Amino acid sequence: MIKIDGKGVSQKILAYIRKEHDILKEKYGRSAGLGVIIVGDNPASKVYVNNKIKACENVGFYSETISLGGNITEKDLIKEIERLNKNNKIDGILVQLPLPNHINELKITETIFPEKDVDGFHPLNIGKMVIGDNTGFLPCTPYGIIQLFEEYGIDPAGKDTVIIGRSNIVGKPAALMLIQRGATVQVCNTKTKNINEKLKNADIIISAAGVPNLIKGTDVKEGAVVIDVGINRVKGKLCGDVNYEEASEKVGYITPVPGGVGPMTIAGLIKNTFKSYINKVEK
Amino acid sequence: MIKIDGKGVSQKILAYIRKEHDILKEKYGRSAGLGVIIVGDNPASKVYVNNKIKACENVGFYSETISLGGNITEKDLIKEIERLNKNNKIDGILVQLPLPNHINELKITETIFPEKDVDGFHPLNIGKMVIGDNTGFLPCTPYGIIQLFEEYGIDPAGKDTVIIGRSNIVGKPAALMLIQRGATVQVCNTKTKNINEKLKNADIIISAAGVPNLIKGTDVKEGAVVIDVGINRVKGKLCGDVNYEEASEKVGYITPVPGGVGPMTIAGLIKNTFKSYINKVEK
Repeated sequence: MIKIDGKGVSQKILAYIRKEHDILKEKYGRSAGLGVIIVGDNPASKVYVNNKIKACENVGFYSETISLGGNITEKDLIKEIERLNKNNKIDGILVQLPLPNHINELKITETIFPEKDVDGFHPLNIGKMVIGDNTGFLPCTPYGIIQLFEEYGIDPAGKDTVIIGRSNIVGKPAALMLIQRGATVQVCNTKTKNINEKLKNADIIISAAGVPNLIKGTDVKEGAVVIDVGINRVKGKLCGDVNYEEASEKVGYITPVPGGVGPMTIAGLIKNTFKSYINKVEK
Repeated sequence: MIKIDGKGVSQKILAYIRKEHDILKEKYGRSAGLGVIIVGDNPASKVYVNNKIKACENVGFYSETISLGGNITEKDLIKEIERLNKNNKIDGILVQLPLPNHINELKITETIFPEKDVDGFHPLNIGKMVIGDNTGFLPCTPYGIIQLFEEYGIDPAGKDTVIIGRSNIVGKPAALMLIQRGATVQVCNTKTKNINEKLKNADIIISAAGVPNLIKGTDVKEGAVVIDVGINRVKGKLCGDVNYEEASEKVGYITPVPGGVGPMTIAGLIKNTFKSYINKVEK
């Protein structure tokens, strides 16, 4: 069994970007910049945003965090995004999700300029991913997963792959990126029949359900690749969707939580921001 | 066994649009318009384009066909598209695929204004479909399939669905539209293992492989829904991917070829063009 070291791979990527960024910063006289908007005081969102800001500092990017009260109107939030759209110091914009219920997430996502949408959530970037136009930005979490596959030499082509969850930010884009790479992809949801049987036959499992202990040792095949995207808190401790102790005795590869997909999501964000910066300074 | 009457459903849709269009044409003083570009002299493309033009006449739309030689440059083709983009009589633009090898299809697709992209191939429209923003246009073939499901009361939620083929125009968008509707969707390709077993367990099969006799009677489950998107020519006769004689003895629903998905693709195109027209005249 190989424990996939997301943290280590992420650090390697960040170290590489730091070096490349130093060179370009010197050459073009400005840093890459990330603008982050956080609405309300969801504690988990604050932790995520802090980790992203820390990663920016780590690689030498400029960053700007705009914290807005939970009762901000949609109109005022849009104004903040439009300011960042126009700000030349900002290459990437990220609005931390979830947003309060009175704000239309779809509308907010589509307000961000596609060329600054480093989360890869704008429909233009999603569509480019689907049709294989690589000028856009890939959603950070599945992008991170694909990089883990590359790092560990896992080729998804022809592999029976089960994805649990069909969200716009993980399940659907992960499915599309793996379909693109030749995997036989099965996307499951809460209505799926015989899920345990499907899991047991899978060469690759990607779980993004957010349900602790959803996948047990008996659910996985000998030698399978298990990617755990779940981030759950049980008695104050972080855990994924997979029973790690049980599964790790059977599988070929497995990501831990924390230290697996989480840091790779941040690496994806930093890579996207750097790509946007290069697009702007080198054009 | 119920033979799904794509031709009949399509005619019903066209009759409805003809009536609605007559009213709006009277009210706003102009018809909906479709601009079609065909490059080279692929006989199959000519047949498809003729059917689309005939459908336009049938519902009272204005249409314009631009036939270009197979050696036209990419730049000149783009100029033709840009003229249609600017033409106020044209609500929808369709460039018949495939294009000659020296022309970049991706680039052509992205040249069409998204608000006139009635084929639903532009990345912005694809991305809107993925995230559930219904202001865009859906790709015509899977759109047609979904309408057949609605017409026949087939609810894909929770159903084990196998899709053969992962193209940008059928396999991937069909998968996304069915994931959106709660199906458990498995997308297969030529590298897929144990394809017969997967088919045998499927509640719904959508085949877009373009391989005659690919799916035999022994491959389908009793009561399954079989949607045949294949259009193949064997000894001068049209047939799909499914052995219709064998399969129809076991399945619950099946589309014939011809007369199944084909006419529904055209209905999808006409619906999209009409939607674009309404967006423009009623804004």
